Amino acid sequence: MTAELPLSATPRTTLHRLRERARTDRGDLYAVLDAGLICHLGVVIDGAPVVLPTGYGRIGDTLYLHGSSANRSLLAAVGHEVCATITLLDGLVCARSIFNHSINYRSAVIIGPARLVTEDPERLGALRAVTEQLAPGQWDYARQPTRKELAATAVLALPLAEASVKVRSGPPHDEPEDYDSGAWAGVIPAALTFGPPEPDPALSPAIPVPVHVAALARRTYKVEG
Amino acid sequence: MTAELPLSATPRTTLHRLRERARTDRGDLYAVLDAGLICHLGVVIDGAPVVLPTGYGRIGDTLYLHGSSANRSLLAAVGHEVCATITLLDGLVCARSIFNHSINYRSAVIIGPARLVTEDPERLGALRAVTEQLAPGQWDYARQPTRKELAATAVLALPLAEASVKVRSGPPHDEPEDYDSGAWAGVIPAALTFGPPEPDPALSPAIPVPVHVAALARRTYKVEG
Repeated sequence: MTAELPLSATPRTTLHRLRERARTDRGDLYAVLDAGLICHLGVVIDGAPVVLPTGYGRIGDTLYLHGSSANRSLLAAVGHEVCATITLLDGLVCARSIFNHSINYRSAVIIGPARLVTEDPERLGALRAVTEQLAPGQWDYARQPTRKELAATAVLALPLAEASVKVRSGPPHDEPEDYDSGAWAGVIPAALTFGPPEPDPALSPAIPVPVHVAALARRTYKVEG
Repeated sequence: MTAELPLSATPRTTLHRLRERARTDRGDLYAVLDAGLICHLGVVIDGAPVVLPTGYGRIGDTLYLHGSSANRSLLAAVGHEVCATITLLDGLVCARSIFNHSINYRSAVIIGPARLVTEDPERLGALRAVTEQLAPGQWDYARQPTRKELAATAVLALPLAEASVKVRSGPPHDEPEDYDSGAWAGVIPAALTFGPPEPDPALSPAIPVPVHVAALARRTYKVEG
């Protein structure tokens, strides 16, 4: 399901260089967000940028982030502009020249005001989205949050209004005079992959790996090799 | 080779929560930086944070970043404080409760003033470090940068003076009352892995995959499964 709205580019999110790598379809934005596992959240604290890795989830045109309600960086973001960047590394691009080395990747950059989510229905929906983004199936499987646990959790919402998507794929682009250099050139594909589930040592051996967890471990973000 | 200096924690990089995840040894910082492939660079533009993925390299206690000399975000950073964050995702931690779900990871956060590198010896050393971080062996294998290519490249230096390292590993930590819930709990290990090299379609089939490229493709950052 892809919304019809194009991405809204502003001077901050408009790509000034390499425009061929920019995507302007909202479906491209959703695709990158839905394929990622963590984002890097940038906030400004005392005038300096601080970038921290964190989980996220998407519902429609809102990105949700969560953290401890004692997390100073997260709370510093409330009411201010933040930047959430999701990057998927797809490959190392080995060119015939050092200058044309590159990486294949998909990335999304979203800038906007962070809103503290305070109402329970939206908070629970957001926490579900964040949980399911990392580990699909766990929201319905694990014990739900208590009032005390909810109070210890801060949830932020970031509108997907100002965003850019950048994608590089394919072989290196070398200078014309380098193509006959005799050097090897190509792409080494990269991907995040998962291994067999490792049971908690405190777990009873009688408890088998649930079907949805086994499926999680078979996930791979590998591009075709 | 591990330097003797401990990490210098400041209020910005001191972990206020979950102190058990913080590492204070400079060798831990080097280990995370040396194992990563890309960083997320945060800069402040017109008061708002902008976070972009980029390559990096380390020489001693300096982190080097590079980009096009037409890259506005990179140039906006010169003379100002920036934040470079490197994150390695090691696993998904599935707990018996939603609240205790987590990720296993290693991350380094470095905040400091970005300096534009202008002298050739340091610039070339930095570009070598950035290239070798992504694709070891390529610096000596591919064609070196020309004067024109060097002029089109901006190199930034960031001192490893103010930094924090955070590591989470191992099984979930559940509430005492949840251990008998009967739910499965454990870790799904995650890792960046590489696939077989894909030759540039423009490459002569007579050119074999060099030994160092084949080695790159066998690299894996997978934790023991």
